[in-house]
Amino acid sequence: MAIQNVIPCAPNEITEPNNDVSRLDISKLSVTLTESPKPLLPPEVIRLRFGTTFTDHMAIATYDPSTGWSNPEIKPYAPLMLDPSSSCLQISSSVLEGMKAYLGPDGKARLFRPELNMRRLERSAARLALPPVDGDGTLELIKRLVETEKRWIPTLQGYSLYIRPTIIGTQPGLGLLPSEHAMLCIIASPCGPYFPQGLRPISLLAISETVRAWPGGTGAHKICGNYSPGLVPQRAAAKQGYDQVLWLFGEEKRVTEAGVMHFCVVVTRDDGNGESFDCLHGRYVGGGINLVEGCDFITAPLDGMIIPGVTRASCLALVSDPAFNEAAGLNLHPVERTYTIQDLVEWSSQGKLMEALCIGTAAIVVAVNKIGYEGKDVEVPEHEAGLGPVGMALREKILAIQEGREEYEGWSVVCE
Amino acid sequence: MAIQNVIPCAPNEITEPNNDVSRLDISKLSVTLTESPKPLLPPEVIRLRFGTTFTDHMAIATYDPSTGWSNPEIKPYAPLMLDPSSSCLQISSSVLEGMKAYLGPDGKARLFRPELNMRRLERSAARLALPPVDGDGTLELIKRLVETEKRWIPTLQGYSLYIRPTIIGTQPGLGLLPSEHAMLCIIASPCGPYFPQGLRPISLLAISETVRAWPGGTGAHKICGNYSPGLVPQRAAAKQGYDQVLWLFGEEKRVTEAGVMHFCVVVTRDDGNGESFDCLHGRYVGGGINLVEGCDFITAPLDGMIIPGVTRASCLALVSDPAFNEAAGLNLHPVERTYTIQDLVEWSSQGKLMEALCIGTAAIVVAVNKIGYEGKDVEVPEHEAGLGPVGMALREKILAIQEGREEYEGWSVVCE
Repeated sequence: MAIQNVIPCAPNEITEPNNDVSRLDISKLSVTLTESPKPLLPPEVIRLRFGTTFTDHMAIATYDPSTGWSNPEIKPYAPLMLDPSSSCLQISSSVLEGMKAYLGPDGKARLFRPELNMRRLERSAARLALPPVDGDGTLELIKRLVETEKRWIPTLQGYSLYIRPTIIGTQPGLGLLPSEHAMLCIIASPCGPYFPQGLRPISLLAISETVRAWPGGTGAHKICGNYSPGLVPQRAAAKQGYDQVLWLFGEEKRVTEAGVMHFCVVVTRDDGNGESFDCLHGRYVGGGINLVEGCDFITAPLDGMIIPGVTRASCLALVSDPAFNEAAGLNLHPVERTYTIQDLVEWSSQGKLMEALCIGTAAIVVAVNKIGYEGKDVEVPEHEAGLGPVGMALREKILAIQEGREEYEGWSVVCE
Repeated sequence: MAIQNVIPCAPNEITEPNNDVSRLDISKLSVTLTESPKPLLPPEVIRLRFGTTFTDHMAIATYDPSTGWSNPEIKPYAPLMLDPSSSCLQISSSVLEGMKAYLGPDGKARLFRPELNMRRLERSAARLALPPVDGDGTLELIKRLVETEKRWIPTLQGYSLYIRPTIIGTQPGLGLLPSEHAMLCIIASPCGPYFPQGLRPISLLAISETVRAWPGGTGAHKICGNYSPGLVPQRAAAKQGYDQVLWLFGEEKRVTEAGVMHFCVVVTRDDGNGESFDCLHGRYVGGGINLVEGCDFITAPLDGMIIPGVTRASCLALVSDPAFNEAAGLNLHPVERTYTIQDLVEWSSQGKLMEALCIGTAAIVVAVNKIGYEGKDVEVPEHEAGLGPVGMALREKILAIQEGREEYEGWSVVCE
């Protein structure tokens, strides 16, 4: 009957092999280069304006139910011609992904765990009854676009080429029917570090009047329609002086996501005698000496209301890795669990809340220094570097892998 | 802080007067007629394919934050040129309305309570942080388009010209920001009766695994993103032999909407002695004689999860009207209340469930003959005419008003 929304993002998840009609055949790629390449942007312009300037080309493929995916094309960036009655405009049958390409020290362009994005794109499209998506073929097309636009990838550390694949339903008509026609459109925009003026923590306003995701809804999928409803609450939070919203859920006010990022907290464990050891600073909260229990790295579970994020999965994997912990001088335990704003309040007041982090493709890892809730602020310790030890270690590790400075579990994939 | 989602649709609700920048100035309308008008469609083609053929023209206006709404245009129907990074494609910043124009016996084109659609359009746009919508100006533009396309309004009873206004965010860029640029696009498609082969009841499959709307969500607004998530459950219901889904909500399995229509039931009241009088057929359920208490006309309240529907509001108004009841030989009491699938099961088993109806702009009023729930069907009495007395009286009254054969409370608005 109705579909199951609780789809965890397992790295090893395999979709069924594509039949012919759903295959995107990269061997048939046609490339038409622009005759008037644009000048590259200076880093300060890239830094200040995310996602407003695009590279010279885009990648396109269209799906027709009788012939399947068309031969993919890379061609000059240009407006799309869409019938006004197109499904994507009338009923928002559109899904998206967000990825980044980095230039490594070897001069090669790299993507970060792109197969996770592709599996998610396949699931998102299925959730909206769009035509079957060939994630592997799409990834090949993305790699070709990245190669074509290689000159656009900034070489400065923390800079990258943001890649935005979308699949939009293009079937004309007002009947409420699955769009049998679709377009895959991949555009790219050079992008700087999330915070132009160096790392700085952000503030969150916890809200429950407006709800991002719901059991049985679409919050676990990257469908385009999930994003515009967050604009009004985001604007309201900004008016109150907060950077982003923290989405609470239900009467118990569960903590879910923050803006369009995942939210995690580092909470020091009790030592079994009711005392808490701050493993980050090597001291007990409230004094005492006992076994070092370390810290929990807590984030909400993939219960159907949380996007199965690539950065989220990567942070959880690193936190589970003894080598990562050892190298960073940490003792972290990954915990995917339901927790509430009241838990946050208590951990903060007990001095157990070591760090609060927002993580995602755009920001990678960002510290949170306060969380507004019911007129008060839940305080989170601030760190001089703009990130605490856990946030900093995760951020540096992920950036090093993304930029090809370190190899880790094959996460960084060369485009060639 | 976060916005309040519970916005009832009050007929007398007045929006604030528009300031200049948000005004759509119909006196500046430019009309460019096509040089190659299309042939009209025969009724059998119109009947069979809803929303696939469009009239010769469309109406367009664009919004720029510095200059406000552009001079509106009526021009030949044509594809829209949209930047691939447009807000409407990337984050589904798009809202819609659905209306019908009828040709009256006086040869004049009429709209049905269009001011309700316009107020709702204003609210929908605000929910997605789109530019301010001038509902009154938009209505004038719709009237001009209807006048321009008058030859497309079929003259057969039950036929009409379906009007689809959309407002889409056209700002290019991938930052998650309100779209400061927008386009109003109004297209029209000749449409036949909902059921080509005469009135017939439909079946519903009650589901709760997938959820259409939730408290704090966007279910009370006509945003485009509300519609594509319903496609997969709809397809699953069809595979099980049901026409539409009945959306249940929460652990208590509240009855909310049906597909993209409202759902109402007619339930006979107890007579105070524990017996039920079937006021529709003038007999007691289970025998006995007592005071005629009539029937409740029950539908879910506007609690933030229900679209404030024009047909819904109109049915409730008619049901409240003693003159309507008297003329139809009915004794109905409008009841906006929360009720559950278990209530439906009980009313059905007690013989109290007289009619179940789906109502909306497209279908007007349609009978439901069974509701699948947990492997069984809740039975609803069937009527030879395809609609019971309540459904038929409402449908005929509304159609008579829409087609200008009857005047009622100024509901039918002439386009001139």
